[in-house]
Amino acid sequence: MPQYKAPLRDMQFVLHELLNIEQHYASLPAFADTVSRELVDQYLETAADFCENELAPLNQIGDREGCQWHDGVVTTPTGFKEAYQKYIELGFPSLTAEEQYGGQALPNSLGSVISEMVGSSNWAWGMYPGLSHGAVRTIEHHGSDQQKNTYLPKLVSGEWTGTMCLTESHAGSDLGIIRTKAEPNSDGSYAISGEKIFISAGEHDMAENIVHIVLARLPGAPRGTKGISLFIVPKINVNADGSLAERNAVRCGSIEHKMGIHGNATCVINFDQAKGYLIGPENRGLNCMFTFMNTARIGTAIQGLAASESSFQGAVTYARERLAMRALSGAKNPDKEADPIIVHPAVRNLLLTQKAFAEGGRALVYFLSQYADLVEHAATEEARQSADNILSFLTPIAKAFLTETGYEAANKGVQVFGGHGFISEHGMEQIVRDTRIACLYEGTTEIQALDLLGRKVLQSKGALLKDFIQIVTQFCEQHKDNAQLAEFIAPLATHLKQWGDITNQIGAKAQENPDEVGAAAVDYLYFSGYVTLAYFWANMAAVAQQKLAEGSTETAFYGAKINTAKFYFSKILPRTRAHTAIINTGVGTLMALSADDFII
Amino acid sequence: MPQYKAPLRDMQFVLHELLNIEQHYASLPAFADTVSRELVDQYLETAADFCENELAPLNQIGDREGCQWHDGVVTTPTGFKEAYQKYIELGFPSLTAEEQYGGQALPNSLGSVISEMVGSSNWAWGMYPGLSHGAVRTIEHHGSDQQKNTYLPKLVSGEWTGTMCLTESHAGSDLGIIRTKAEPNSDGSYAISGEKIFISAGEHDMAENIVHIVLARLPGAPRGTKGISLFIVPKINVNADGSLAERNAVRCGSIEHKMGIHGNATCVINFDQAKGYLIGPENRGLNCMFTFMNTARIGTAIQGLAASESSFQGAVTYARERLAMRALSGAKNPDKEADPIIVHPAVRNLLLTQKAFAEGGRALVYFLSQYADLVEHAATEEARQSADNILSFLTPIAKAFLTETGYEAANKGVQVFGGHGFISEHGMEQIVRDTRIACLYEGTTEIQALDLLGRKVLQSKGALLKDFIQIVTQFCEQHKDNAQLAEFIAPLATHLKQWGDITNQIGAKAQENPDEVGAAAVDYLYFSGYVTLAYFWANMAAVAQQKLAEGSTETAFYGAKINTAKFYFSKILPRTRAHTAIINTGVGTLMALSADDFII
Repeated sequence: MPQYKAPLRDMQFVLHELLNIEQHYASLPAFADTVSRELVDQYLETAADFCENELAPLNQIGDREGCQWHDGVVTTPTGFKEAYQKYIELGFPSLTAEEQYGGQALPNSLGSVISEMVGSSNWAWGMYPGLSHGAVRTIEHHGSDQQKNTYLPKLVSGEWTGTMCLTESHAGSDLGIIRTKAEPNSDGSYAISGEKIFISAGEHDMAENIVHIVLARLPGAPRGTKGISLFIVPKINVNADGSLAERNAVRCGSIEHKMGIHGNATCVINFDQAKGYLIGPENRGLNCMFTFMNTARIGTAIQGLAASESSFQGAVTYARERLAMRALSGAKNPDKEADPIIVHPAVRNLLLTQKAFAEGGRALVYFLSQYADLVEHAATEEARQSADNILSFLTPIAKAFLTETGYEAANKGVQVFGGHGFISEHGMEQIVRDTRIACLYEGTTEIQALDLLGRKVLQSKGALLKDFIQIVTQFCEQHKDNAQLAEFIAPLATHLKQWGDITNQIGAKAQENPDEVGAAAVDYLYFSGYVTLAYFWANMAAVAQQKLAEGSTETAFYGAKINTAKFYFSKILPRTRAHTAIINTGVGTLMALSADDFII
Repeated sequence: MPQYKAPLRDMQFVLHELLNIEQHYASLPAFADTVSRELVDQYLETAADFCENELAPLNQIGDREGCQWHDGVVTTPTGFKEAYQKYIELGFPSLTAEEQYGGQALPNSLGSVISEMVGSSNWAWGMYPGLSHGAVRTIEHHGSDQQKNTYLPKLVSGEWTGTMCLTESHAGSDLGIIRTKAEPNSDGSYAISGEKIFISAGEHDMAENIVHIVLARLPGAPRGTKGISLFIVPKINVNADGSLAERNAVRCGSIEHKMGIHGNATCVINFDQAKGYLIGPENRGLNCMFTFMNTARIGTAIQGLAASESSFQGAVTYARERLAMRALSGAKNPDKEADPIIVHPAVRNLLLTQKAFAEGGRALVYFLSQYADLVEHAATEEARQSADNILSFLTPIAKAFLTETGYEAANKGVQVFGGHGFISEHGMEQIVRDTRIACLYEGTTEIQALDLLGRKVLQSKGALLKDFIQIVTQFCEQHKDNAQLAEFIAPLATHLKQWGDITNQIGAKAQENPDEVGAAAVDYLYFSGYVTLAYFWANMAAVAQQKLAEGSTETAFYGAKINTAKFYFSKILPRTRAHTAIINTGVGTLMALSADDFII
């Protein structure tokens, strides 16, 4: 089983050297006086210790034992509950919450770094506190004062956890067709009835209460997405003084048997005239949810990054130890019966692909989290809007591209192990199974692709794309005379131009036939992902080169950074050629078959 | 759970219309008088009925229950044993075996078609009889008359099963370093001692005896691959009259917990001075094994094809039923609350990719099986050798490319189901887990790639590649004036030229640095796979077009074939552009990092 070790040096490289995060915090009134480099590094150390020593050892246990359901009660795997208590004691649940409800009011970007460690060491466990986060944010932004006072302190402290109850058996991506009903009670509350599925952490034994945020329809609500409202539905009702009252009519009907994340309870939750409280305006539930769509999707992007990182760690260790065959260029280990498999170019290709996705993904995620800070805390509305444009544009890329590359990296980790990769005890196949869901939930890759190309790029008439291209262009301009970076800057600039060109081409075709958008979207997303990561790799190479030029003694670290950038540009970025060629062929061959003719 | 339905129409299309299999059998003395179209179709019907109604219903049960190990005894999942009895009653185990040992002496190519059905409906089950096949072939080709008489009749009837015991914990791809020992006994037998792992069907309750074919080293044998011999080691010793004697010192030490194929027992087998019998010449064990390497690898290629087919069937059914969102081009199902998801181009892309891999893979596998027939039964040594060249060249492509595309197709099937794809009851994620092993066993994708580029292409100085290119060139020539096929023939011809060009380039670079072969091999294999499948798709389109021109009324079937070919050429074949671009960048960036610098 891979022994997780938090990549603190790389995290610090991205935070401090690539993103100048201290300066970023200093520029934001909310954090200028409170968040220093020392504080960031101290949280990282604490989180690393907790994740390496408490969570990682439970990862395989969670997979093997899974959750147990008995008559509505869910028992989590051995050790999960105790680890959660330690997590509370360390103060992690309250990290980013508002101070007046007991939060530490620290930046979300710091939360993302900690989420990466939690997720890399034990994703299934991390979903319990992770889901709470969405509930807290929803109540913080849309709740009444009374709702905030009732629910936030206990959610923030971690004594209670939260869920998001959106999906129904027939309605996943298409939330407009949900059927759960909310009928007004005489006391101002609502009676919520319906069945929700795929509710992660929907029932468990780790906290004394669970606060469900539920999408439902009011009587006579308009059809579709404009008739959905948001409700707080606690598992156990709460008295006015905050103490627990009687059980609400909320029941976990069953838990799913699934491919992975066995340690997390994926629940069917039945609401049978359960008491609920409207949160936010009537029929505006989806809009309220969309407030956090970007951060929730970054949260899922982190799962992809985490899979790349943990699988990479396991694979490198194995590739250095496992002896099999000789290097084609002659024995490297002549006194042993074979060479370690890391001598083989094909094995190195697997490992470097993982490394490039993990470290490149880290840069993208932390960069986005920095923009999420700006969206909330930048001093001017203009700065917030401009940050929101970048965030909105990059979020579907990060979510879909990093989860797909995370899945690829996890599979490459299995491949490095050969047949042993298929065996559970080594832990490599678990990473594949656990991370497979990341390409599905929070909007599948196909949905993200439509969001990127349709909503973000074409609906803005290319404006959001231009904003990001401007950032990259500026970087290219800045380094255009640096000969050592030419191998990165030139192809990056070429790809930027191509990005604009294919966008225009698709836009023109879509005028004729809207299905051209759906036909191009997934390849467009991959193209965008590869170019986005190329920017971060070029940028990281530039930073590393600068450090070496300044005489840093960390030559191995910075040298590896530059060499991995070179690998990315020579072995990964050329994948864009397939995607542009495929985009060029348009929608035609996709729509030719009638539904009846797929199988004859 | 996908309800498997044998794709008989498509199988017949490939066998009869694409490959003229009846004519092929008529040309071979071994089958000319015995194998007619009627006989082939009758076997197909019988196998389809058995697979659809007996094996498919056990597939999910096998996954859920898995095999149980208790003190050396393995119990297979509910129903497996009974299904095996029916399989015996239907005469399938003896299909391709020699008549004098009770076989039906039917062609291997017919066996492949039946293997596809067995594998598509229940791969884990199919491995029990599948592994016997290797043991039978080994004994048929290398056994003494006495060995044949002792073991073959019961193996051929299916009363006993067989295994291949190659791998040891430290030795997988590198069999040269195995440690299992064979010490001569005074009676001419050998005492076999050692531990073998990953022995599929190594112990079970479906047959009264198990015949292990074991690789081991004789005292003083040369080091490496030239010091390995092959032994027959029965689980229960066999008396001279064929009756069972005492238990041999062969014990199943444990079974593996693994990602998939739970219904098949993957065993650790301990030999503790077990009685074994040398088969074939001393120290030539690996050569004896290599006789069947190609057919064993085609067997694994079938797993990829089977995954594409079964996942495709499940996904198409779901995509036609599941209602979510509206077509971008306007509602297609206005009286329902949403359109079936098959209206979306991105969903069609997933489905058509599966279909293209399944049907294209079928053509490749059956074509190869036809060549395997020729290698064994062609009238002249020259014809056998020439067939062997094609078979040897295409086998690593079929094994690696079809298992990788099968895995991709299985994942696409999950993607079509969205979150439901992750849930076990739907059966889609099981296909992913079951087929993941196909890219690992019988030589990983990386090993196949080295076999293709290093051994087959470069060692033959391109001769084997030229043989296959000649077949494709001939096809292109034949249709060069057919305007309706121009969209296939032109890009196919371009790719053929490119295939030669990149081969020459790599060959030249490899003169300077042997690691260039390892660096290029996997991309070269993918390139080769996409072009090979392009040939089969062009060929199938040509056949379909011809049938339509002749006035066939099966316009939907042939129309779908042509449209899927168009899809393949526009949406799949352009992937080669990434591979050629990546090959061009050579080995440089792969070898730059020292092993110590992968993680700092």
